[in-house]
Amino acid sequence: MAPITNGRLIFKEIPSGYPVPGKTTVYDKSSTIDLENAPLKGSILVKTLVLSVDPYLRGKMRAAERESYTPPFFIDEPLYNYGVGKVVRSENPAFHAGDHVYGMLDFAEYFIPKDITKLKVIVRPESTLPYSVYVGAAGMPGQTSYYGWKEYAKPKAGETIFVSTAAGPVGSLVVQLAKQDGLKVIASAGSDEKVKFCKEIGADVAFNYKTTNTAEVLAKEGPINIYWDNVGGPTLEAAIGNSALHGRIIICGFITQYNDEEPYGIKTMRNVLANRLSINGLLVFDHQERYLDEFYEVIPKKLASGEFKYTEDITRGLEKGGEAILEVQKGVNTAKKIIVVADD
Amino acid sequence: MAPITNGRLIFKEIPSGYPVPGKTTVYDKSSTIDLENAPLKGSILVKTLVLSVDPYLRGKMRAAERESYTPPFFIDEPLYNYGVGKVVRSENPAFHAGDHVYGMLDFAEYFIPKDITKLKVIVRPESTLPYSVYVGAAGMPGQTSYYGWKEYAKPKAGETIFVSTAAGPVGSLVVQLAKQDGLKVIASAGSDEKVKFCKEIGADVAFNYKTTNTAEVLAKEGPINIYWDNVGGPTLEAAIGNSALHGRIIICGFITQYNDEEPYGIKTMRNVLANRLSINGLLVFDHQERYLDEFYEVIPKKLASGEFKYTEDITRGLEKGGEAILEVQKGVNTAKKIIVVADD
Repeated sequence: MAPITNGRLIFKEIPSGYPVPGKTTVYDKSSTIDLENAPLKGSILVKTLVLSVDPYLRGKMRAAERESYTPPFFIDEPLYNYGVGKVVRSENPAFHAGDHVYGMLDFAEYFIPKDITKLKVIVRPESTLPYSVYVGAAGMPGQTSYYGWKEYAKPKAGETIFVSTAAGPVGSLVVQLAKQDGLKVIASAGSDEKVKFCKEIGADVAFNYKTTNTAEVLAKEGPINIYWDNVGGPTLEAAIGNSALHGRIIICGFITQYNDEEPYGIKTMRNVLANRLSINGLLVFDHQERYLDEFYEVIPKKLASGEFKYTEDITRGLEKGGEAILEVQKGVNTAKKIIVVADD
Repeated sequence: MAPITNGRLIFKEIPSGYPVPGKTTVYDKSSTIDLENAPLKGSILVKTLVLSVDPYLRGKMRAAERESYTPPFFIDEPLYNYGVGKVVRSENPAFHAGDHVYGMLDFAEYFIPKDITKLKVIVRPESTLPYSVYVGAAGMPGQTSYYGWKEYAKPKAGETIFVSTAAGPVGSLVVQLAKQDGLKVIASAGSDEKVKFCKEIGADVAFNYKTTNTAEVLAKEGPINIYWDNVGGPTLEAAIGNSALHGRIIICGFITQYNDEEPYGIKTMRNVLANRLSINGLLVFDHQERYLDEFYEVIPKKLASGEFKYTEDITRGLEKGGEAILEVQKGVNTAKKIIVVADD
């Protein structure tokens, strides 16, 4: 079989603010691949089906010498992130043609992973759950919620939690975990449609932070015992300021600050002392070993049965990947953003 | 015996910035007490020997309706704080004339406590340790250090800690606990004399924050694994910004901000996520139950033997109490500030 075009989304240039499609990232069709004969060298050939688009990708679009919690993308190489693919060919006994794999995938229609340990075969007894969910509520974002909840939330029935970006894949699972544990949930999101979804999944109070003042809502509905922070900035400031005695704050994202050059100054830190708050930064990778098996045991079943709800916002075609990334950075996506690269 | 004058330091007025002696606090000689006949109603009559002057007292000089972690002082009533007194008379079987008691004492030469449960008789097998130390390194400040170290520091030998106000009663014990556990200690203090004391108690790096840039020291000597914060403000900002992966920050005081109306905005909170920091507010009272007996078992011995060092800055006479309080707020005291009200 003759080589075919292998579309790829390339990291071209470090952005100074928002990542610009066609400039920061460029869709490239110059590469080809021979599906039957491309040498695998003990690896596998993967056909990419779905790719996750997450806020944290912005942090990887930086100069290689600047340290952060996640390695940077390489200029002129494809982006990569969590995804689900299908094995086309395999030279590794752990993988077979037709298997579905989850893990770090290149933003490419096809690719041969150098590090195969970052992929695992999806075992899917919950066969009604679409593969796309394995990069969302049943994937890294869902794991983030689950691990943080287990490790830092210390929830008690009757307490009050505030969740920012509560309609997103991380926040919406936190809302549902909190309701399951008997908490009052205050949820904020960036559109009326997202606010509606927050209420559908059980939030007691849900508001559009673009039209409603967060600090006022917290002053009225709080004080809060737990704050799940996905945004940083003034929202974090308001949450710290409205935290109750021995409140817990889980900092899981800083989306409002990823694209700002000048960081926002938090003026309410004195309440950390006054109310003896506990603030913890959360990164999913730190807690995989402890909770990953438990997560796969518990969460996909609840998602497949409908007990836990999720939503997706799908972009079709890798060539639209740059736009999908920008939408997530600007928060104009309507739900967990997925790029469907190819059908199963 | 005829009634004698009972000098008292009265809380007269809520200050807007620093507490002004003669205005915020007034030394009052209008009250008298009859030492032999004053009715005790089941309580005891205490002669005040020493009183502790602590930074947190500023927080009690506020409007009664403003909530905080410690109750406010009452206008026209004496201030109160930790101290050591001698029992003159007792109608309570747990106390005897001649006993030395530790606990919450009025800023008065003599007083009859309403709530006797806040006092305990000092058992002092380490008879070389002066009573004044029981309001310092062997009292509440020392307990603060010990509890925070046990509960939140999670020290590992070879790690680096930064301690602010490291020559103070809390900081200096933290420095010594850290050295005992094999850490590299960076210490900051507000005078060259204090810096010298930091070095004497083992700090590897000690600097005067008034003449040396804290952020520069931390960038050079860090990153830091633990930060013991007594000050808040730009120092806290620098410490968060220079914290290592999984760093621990213990917020134990906010002295730079107690007298400011406009709080400082901390711009480095993103590092809480990037390096998954853990920040905890520490108040000594939260941990009494768990660690108090252990503290008295461990620390006074080490102080009496000279293994752990301490310093004191003594003001003689309750009439100078207002000045002593102001010195501590301004940080011009040279060590743990004690008011000696009367000799034993």
